[in-house]
Amino acid sequence: MMARIVRFHQTGGPEVLRLDVVVEADPGPGEISLRIEAIGLNRAEVMLRQGIYHEQPVFPSRIGYEAAGVVAALGPGVAAFREGDRVATVPSFVLSQTKQGVYGESAVVPVEVVLAYPPSLSAVQGAALWMQYLTAYGALVDYGGLEPKDVALITAASSSVGIAAIQIAKERGALVIATTRHSDKKPALLELGADHVIASEEEDLPARVMEITGGSGARIIFDPIAGPMLTVLCAAAAPYGTIYEYGALHPGETDYPLMPMLAKSLTITGYQVLDYVRTPERLARARDYIFAGIASGALAPVIDRTFPLDQIVEAHRHMESNTQCGKIVVTV
Amino acid sequence: MMARIVRFHQTGGPEVLRLDVVVEADPGPGEISLRIEAIGLNRAEVMLRQGIYHEQPVFPSRIGYEAAGVVAALGPGVAAFREGDRVATVPSFVLSQTKQGVYGESAVVPVEVVLAYPPSLSAVQGAALWMQYLTAYGALVDYGGLEPKDVALITAASSSVGIAAIQIAKERGALVIATTRHSDKKPALLELGADHVIASEEEDLPARVMEITGGSGARIIFDPIAGPMLTVLCAAAAPYGTIYEYGALHPGETDYPLMPMLAKSLTITGYQVLDYVRTPERLARARDYIFAGIASGALAPVIDRTFPLDQIVEAHRHMESNTQCGKIVVTV
Repeated sequence: MMARIVRFHQTGGPEVLRLDVVVEADPGPGEISLRIEAIGLNRAEVMLRQGIYHEQPVFPSRIGYEAAGVVAALGPGVAAFREGDRVATVPSFVLSQTKQGVYGESAVVPVEVVLAYPPSLSAVQGAALWMQYLTAYGALVDYGGLEPKDVALITAASSSVGIAAIQIAKERGALVIATTRHSDKKPALLELGADHVIASEEEDLPARVMEITGGSGARIIFDPIAGPMLTVLCAAAAPYGTIYEYGALHPGETDYPLMPMLAKSLTITGYQVLDYVRTPERLARARDYIFAGIASGALAPVIDRTFPLDQIVEAHRHMESNTQCGKIVVTV
Repeated sequence: MMARIVRFHQTGGPEVLRLDVVVEADPGPGEISLRIEAIGLNRAEVMLRQGIYHEQPVFPSRIGYEAAGVVAALGPGVAAFREGDRVATVPSFVLSQTKQGVYGESAVVPVEVVLAYPPSLSAVQGAALWMQYLTAYGALVDYGGLEPKDVALITAASSSVGIAAIQIAKERGALVIATTRHSDKKPALLELGADHVIASEEEDLPARVMEITGGSGARIIFDPIAGPMLTVLCAAAAPYGTIYEYGALHPGETDYPLMPMLAKSLTITGYQVLDYVRTPERLARARDYIFAGIASGALAPVIDRTFPLDQIVEAHRHMESNTQCGKIVVTV
């Protein structure tokens, strides 16, 4: 079967992404062939494209972790789904982006990475579900044990994961302080449920957190930035607080602020959703929570903007502009 | 009552320590007067003397956290002890080193910092008990949950806390890898119970840990050094491992190794025994464990060397020489 697939033939900026027409293989044992309807964009793809992801691209390289679609064919021995099922891919180390990436009209992926999504959601929403909510749930609830008495500080809060974290922290009953670089995104983040929003390039972040919390600080901090932000976040943390670092948006080195770490007995944990979902029990627990949250309305994917497949370069440019608020989805 | 008390009148090297004859006040409400028999030396005193501790000295400044002695007088309302009881001080934020420091023939301290010690121990051993075992127990057992299947990596292992950590980790049944800078201390550390000893300035620390553990790495790492050592320790850590940072022996900055932290989902926790023992339940749990360990012989304070009180300057010089193996105690 011929299909239009996004590939790149060298690392670089958004412009290296091309729509190639390729022959898609039939699914092998343990694999499923998907007809893709919508693709969710993530930082992991930008990093793969730039050649700085933990997986190195093999050229011509496919790309993409997250998509919603319809089961088109089952490989030998696969009984978990039927043709026509509406499914989406979950983040997993089992999926090789460069070999099995889901940016395109079709993809052949391991059955382990395929999950049904709530039937009330559109394909666009289905492509904006698993990565963001699994990432936020694992750190905030499963590891962090977020409770109603807690203060959660969520940085880069206008990203899809940031918004998912706001929704989950509010569902847990915590006080939510969101940060974003400039105040132009404040109204949107308040609308999305944050109790307070701090513009980190315009305000003194630790001072504002201490003011809001009456000097207590934040017990759980969820941050994809690192770099100098880590020292700032230590100043905003409560004694015995935990900072989950789940990304590397800052390009340079990160200092470890030893003295505040000792003085407040702080913990920093490196956190990756790909690692979190390795354990089937964890994935099942998170999936149940997310289904329930969608059903109750506590969780609702926020779509920043959609692009058609032939505008994949523009979609990646938009991702890197950092002007979005919510998930960027490409429709097929 | 007149007493010889170690004080310093300016920050600086060991030579700023003096033996001043002062009038010791009577114990006030909630205080106990101790006749000191033995003084345990700790890094916290070196830092106070240098002016880099979280408490700033007020001149003339007393000094010292840890001592064993005999109850000489009780302040009004104090009923927990009787005159003549053999006791030692525990690390606590309640004790101000600069006002109530225990280096000297006597000290007047808050009753909260006084505990009986096992009667089988000498005063010298009693002054080498609480700081080291409470520090190691809190991180390795109470927070870290060390189990027989675990690998514990203990750096600066020839310090009193390092040796206490070796004894506790062995009592828990874990495999213990100790590190020390040079191989001259290897025989002593093996004799003290370490399963393996790595000379960190002569060997490739992560490679040796991976060799010893068959590529798994260490789940619990207990380190007072920080600085560049933190990056080395991340390379020696097992996935999901935890590094407890409990000191700042390295004088410079510490890098946070973001990529290995993310790749292996590592956790770093800033840990201070003064914070750990704030909770009475924790202190009681740790005390019971330490009493039982002394009774069984699993724990036994190792004394590097004793100095008489009038050689306090030499004792501090010896502390800073980093040639010791075990606790340095000053006898009165």
